[in-house]
Amino acid sequence: MKRKTVAILGATGIVGQRFIQLLEGHPWLEVVAVAASERSVGKPYADACSWRLPTALPETVGRMAVQPLDPRQLEGIDLVFSALPADTARDVEPAFAKAGMAISSNASAYRFADDVPLLVPEVNAEHAALIDTQRQNRGWPGLLVTNPNCTTTGIALVLKPLADAFGLRLVLATSMQAVSGAGYPGVPSLDAIDNVLCLIPGEEEKMEKEARILLGQVENGRQAEAAFSVSAQANRVPVIDGHTICLSLKFEHPVSAEQAKSVLTEFRGAAAARDLPSSPEFPLVVRTEPDRPQPRLDRDAGNGMQVTVGRIRECPVFDLRLVLVVHNTIRGAAGGSILNSELLIHEGYVQ
Amino acid sequence: MKRKTVAILGATGIVGQRFIQLLEGHPWLEVVAVAASERSVGKPYADACSWRLPTALPETVGRMAVQPLDPRQLEGIDLVFSALPADTARDVEPAFAKAGMAISSNASAYRFADDVPLLVPEVNAEHAALIDTQRQNRGWPGLLVTNPNCTTTGIALVLKPLADAFGLRLVLATSMQAVSGAGYPGVPSLDAIDNVLCLIPGEEEKMEKEARILLGQVENGRQAEAAFSVSAQANRVPVIDGHTICLSLKFEHPVSAEQAKSVLTEFRGAAAARDLPSSPEFPLVVRTEPDRPQPRLDRDAGNGMQVTVGRIRECPVFDLRLVLVVHNTIRGAAGGSILNSELLIHEGYVQ
Amino acid sequence: MKRKTVAILGATGIVGQRFIQLLEGHPWLEVVAVAASERSVGKPYADACSWRLPTALPETVGRMAVQPLDPRQLEGIDLVFSALPADTARDVEPAFAKAGMAISSNASAYRFADDVPLLVPEVNAEHAALIDTQRQNRGWPGLLVTNPNCTTTGIALVLKPLADAFGLRLVLATSMQAVSGAGYPGVPSLDAIDNVLCLIPGEEEKMEKEARILLGQVENGRQAEAAFSVSAQANRVPVIDGHTICLSLKFEHPVSAEQAKSVLTEFRGAAAARDLPSSPEFPLVVRTEPDRPQPRLDRDAGNGMQVTVGRIRECPVFDLRLVLVVHNTIRGAAGGSILNSELLIHEGYVQ
Amino acid sequence: MKRKTVAILGATGIVGQRFIQLLEGHPWLEVVAVAASERSVGKPYADACSWRLPTALPETVGRMAVQPLDPRQLEGIDLVFSALPADTARDVEPAFAKAGMAISSNASAYRFADDVPLLVPEVNAEHAALIDTQRQNRGWPGLLVTNPNCTTTGIALVLKPLADAFGLRLVLATSMQAVSGAGYPGVPSLDAIDNVLCLIPGEEEKMEKEARILLGQVENGRQAEAAFSVSAQANRVPVIDGHTICLSLKFEHPVSAEQAKSVLTEFRGAAAARDLPSSPEFPLVVRTEPDRPQPRLDRDAGNGMQVTVGRIRECPVFDLRLVLVVHNTIRGAAGGSILNSELLIHEGYVQ
Repeated sequence: MKRKTVAILGATGIVGQRFIQLLEGHPWLEVVAVAASERSVGKPYADACSWRLPTALPETVGRMAVQPLDPRQLEGIDLVFSALPADTARDVEPAFAKAGMAISSNASAYRFADDVPLLVPEVNAEHAALIDTQRQNRGWPGLLVTNPNCTTTGIALVLKPLADAFGLRLVLATSMQAVSGAGYPGVPSLDAIDNVLCLIPGEEEKMEKEARILLGQVENGRQAEAAFSVSAQANRVPVIDGHTICLSLKFEHPVSAEQAKSVLTEFRGAAAARDLPSSPEFPLVVRTEPDRPQPRLDRDAGNGMQVTVGRIRECPVFDLRLVLVVHNTIRGAAGGSILNSELLIHEGYVQ
Repeated sequence: MKRKTVAILGATGIVGQRFIQLLEGHPWLEVVAVAASERSVGKPYADACSWRLPTALPETVGRMAVQPLDPRQLEGIDLVFSALPADTARDVEPAFAKAGMAISSNASAYRFADDVPLLVPEVNAEHAALIDTQRQNRGWPGLLVTNPNCTTTGIALVLKPLADAFGLRLVLATSMQAVSGAGYPGVPSLDAIDNVLCLIPGEEEKMEKEARILLGQVENGRQAEAAFSVSAQANRVPVIDGHTICLSLKFEHPVSAEQAKSVLTEFRGAAAARDLPSSPEFPLVVRTEPDRPQPRLDRDAGNGMQVTVGRIRECPVFDLRLVLVVHNTIRGAAGGSILNSELLIHEGYVQ
Repeated sequence: MKRKTVAILGATGIVGQRFIQLLEGHPWLEVVAVAASERSVGKPYADACSWRLPTALPETVGRMAVQPLDPRQLEGIDLVFSALPADTARDVEPAFAKAGMAISSNASAYRFADDVPLLVPEVNAEHAALIDTQRQNRGWPGLLVTNPNCTTTGIALVLKPLADAFGLRLVLATSMQAVSGAGYPGVPSLDAIDNVLCLIPGEEEKMEKEARILLGQVENGRQAEAAFSVSAQANRVPVIDGHTICLSLKFEHPVSAEQAKSVLTEFRGAAAARDLPSSPEFPLVVRTEPDRPQPRLDRDAGNGMQVTVGRIRECPVFDLRLVLVVHNTIRGAAGGSILNSELLIHEGYVQ
Repeated sequence: MKRKTVAILGATGIVGQRFIQLLEGHPWLEVVAVAASERSVGKPYADACSWRLPTALPETVGRMAVQPLDPRQLEGIDLVFSALPADTARDVEPAFAKAGMAISSNASAYRFADDVPLLVPEVNAEHAALIDTQRQNRGWPGLLVTNPNCTTTGIALVLKPLADAFGLRLVLATSMQAVSGAGYPGVPSLDAIDNVLCLIPGEEEKMEKEARILLGQVENGRQAEAAFSVSAQANRVPVIDGHTICLSLKFEHPVSAEQAKSVLTEFRGAAAARDLPSSPEFPLVVRTEPDRPQPRLDRDAGNGMQVTVGRIRECPVFDLRLVLVVHNTIRGAAGGSILNSELLIHEGYVQ
């Protein structure tokens, strides 16, 4: 297969940089353009961005001149990844879809649009079918899919097998999130060091809604939310990468810690999501040591694409408690968008 | 009033050091002896301890020779504070009570003994009456009271007024705790930096039981647990001092965020606990900014004796959510024991 | 003495907040106005600033409406503290001096002007005499004095007694500076956590020049630089407050570590600087423990106004090595400016 | 070539774990045994060690039963790596050499022994010839070589090309070292967070002596120290991995920053050290951005085997200043020992 040509919108930020890092040597995809806001346009990417990753910036990308966020400048590109801020994404992404391109977006602008699939392939690959409705509704030759918030991604991957097995009713989630989730410059060090920040604006609302979309069904041309309730408390802690989330869960059917461990360990995800270049053989790593997961030790599991779960135990108030770690800028952002694009290719939506 | 003479057991550790710091210039209490384990005995305190606090070690204490953990060496002392490890406390504390001394202990060894009051004065000052049963049972001329775990102390102070007003049914607590809670040397920096530790051995069990004792009644010569259920998830984060705790709460009666704020703001605590030297006028500080409390900014409220509450809002799963910060080595440890001792003096148990 | 009325320019930033904190209850000075840039003007100070200090914002200041940076709005004020950025200070500070006010500035804009005293009272109180030249040159009814960079302040206080005793020739300084030195939002947490930043723009140049001005003489109506050379390497480390600086020093005369300790321990500073409200009895604390100073333990010495020195030992390449810690936003910024203003009052320059 | 069989002494500590991690899949070496102190002997390695690295413990090693530190239990092994504490190494290492094994040690016990080569292959590969003297002196069928302290390794790699080109006279080094350098549990988090520690016992002495041995000549059967002087100030900062070191250097011949950059950029190291499996093509990475190197971004350069140098600029006191970052547990410890062993194999000392 000839590799698809790829452009990255919002390429200079933290998530944009992760796209470039993760796409280096990708078997199906090749970065041929980077685009960003006005003040970067025309500069070599290496000068326009403040590269914050420990691996080297690929030289070919470093030399690319940054393009404007204009589909006319990127004609003929097969696939577009969006790491744009929500406000910018709102206008820019439809323009690209209208111009015939497939967009796999990490932005939140269209996550709650009825006909835009919110996808985590292992969880709800079948929601991709909404693309047909989307094209019909909007008359786009291209298409737009999104991935959820970094925190939701981790939560949904853990909830899916449990909900299927035991019927999910209530979710209480408290997160301890890494500073990279706020982008760059993001959280001031004067706020982060020796501190916990109990407010991440907008985060709790996303966590409470997105998981229900992902575990819901496509009905009447829209994603209907699943019936369980979620209460989220989101906190920022002095960690570079990797969100840690404590869950307490109530189910319709009885569940023991051992049963939950089995179900989580054996989880393979939707068939359509297997054997994609970025999909791990098992989306979840179940740790049985009492002191795992830990973000510094577990965030890179499966090259950052696996979610690590541990401390699975019964709960005196609900049924089950556990702790999970998800790499927020890989599985929870750029890696999630890339996996979505691989699903689109595999399912024939991008040709 | 002549100041009571005071000895500190386990004086060289982190909590022991806090006792010394907080008792400097105390109007009712005067440190006249420090005691610790064998390897420190005989050394000047300044040499025996690795002083980790930013304020200077009081010179008079620095020059004291460390005593053994033996009541015969400390005869005539009015009041003894214990910052001992649980194992040591189990044997040592009764020996002091037997020898006629009043012990206000921060150790966990006797927290769950039927006739040993577990006290947070603003919450359950009336449990001090158990001392009479204790003396009868054990034949001690002295006495022993304890304060709860650092995390529980903050939680109980917030739960008390809410439980009184609305009837408490369910508590889900997720904590993000400071490294000073593990003592010194405590948590290795290789575990703490850029990381979250999801296991604090024994902590969750304490959190789940102690709050129910504190909010329960003294019945038939013992502390009966209150009827609500608690589920706790305890985490360690890279913060020096100050535990942050997210609570989700379910009540018997309807409660709005505004009602909860009023009740918390007006909370004064038990009458017997007011006007003690270490008791703040209001035990709780209610912050209305959306990004408070934060441990670095709020841990020192009321010289570390006030608990700060914020983000009080309704909960889509339970009734109410909030975040609190408590100074773990002041209000949650040494300061809590000192406040207990002040209550004992005020109530006439120490003369 | 009636307290002087005080305004703070640039009141909303980190150093502005320190001015407000340190001036609360000051015996000679009373904050009556706060001023800041356009976007804050008119708002109550409590709303205009993001208060980052653990002590409470004084209520009277919180209610003040923020004034513009315009001397006409602040007529009749006795004394003005400037925490402005250098660019703004360049235009604003002379306007206030022209309008008759005395300005004690922490900004760098005029630190190297020939007739503007750069002052650390214990080091060069006599440089205040330059004010007469300044008034003559510029025709100002008011006046302007500055304090040096936070890092230089610590270095100069340590170098002064050593230079007087042994004749200073060469200084090699490597600093490990706190993030609060960069203001707010300042250093992104993504840069600060688990990292060292080897560039603080402009810092090394200040360190290399300012110490020579402070230890030089006033000659011909200007501050002549002292004859020693300084090489500085400035680094940022993940510390909230308190700069740590390693010095290697070469002198004209022989010096032993013991002699250096004596000289540093006995240092009292210029006579005119003693007995000011903010001047510590001894500007330096000499620690003899092998592992001190440490920024978290020593930054608050003398309410942040003392510099702590330790590890004083001989050097195989130069003569002497040592490590010092200075509180960068107290002694190195707001506290330094306040001490300068006290000197001006004491010497009769502000009446 | 058949792979050499390898045992690791002190396998459970931080450096021991790095040996195991770095040797996985090594083309010349295969770990067949792990050995440690009494309390671990007999346990499966996975149970005996608290694995602190983010990559997974290789399963085959995890299942190995830990051996005692006794050469009789490890007969037939070709090569032994030692990550022992100095005290233990003093007795144990000679026993293995006597038993015929080649030991590449990271311990400091024999670094200053006259006939034990202290090696960084790119710097002084030719010192390996001392092994002949060693065998003659000691009658060992085996052999012992050591690598220097983590900090020295980085410094020596940078000094070598500069010394060769310009003649080195004086070195002032101030280090900001990662906590992993202290092993596990190592530095308490209560000391590390929001702090700088100005004492690393024994470190400065090693830095001052080892660099002179490495850049010296083998004369009369011993390593004669080079003639330059070194003054070191070693500090610990809250960084997980990667030591940052500021150097000020004085040379015999004039040197410009540009000349120094060229010499460092072109440095290839001793011919015998090239083309070994662990040797990078260029031992040094010269960064020209003004804000590099940074430990979090640069420690993993060349899989942790390259040293990154930047901020190369002239010095107002000496001739040249620069900043370097070295991965302390890879290039500065386990990786350094492995590279030494590869040199020994390549030069025929291990067959």
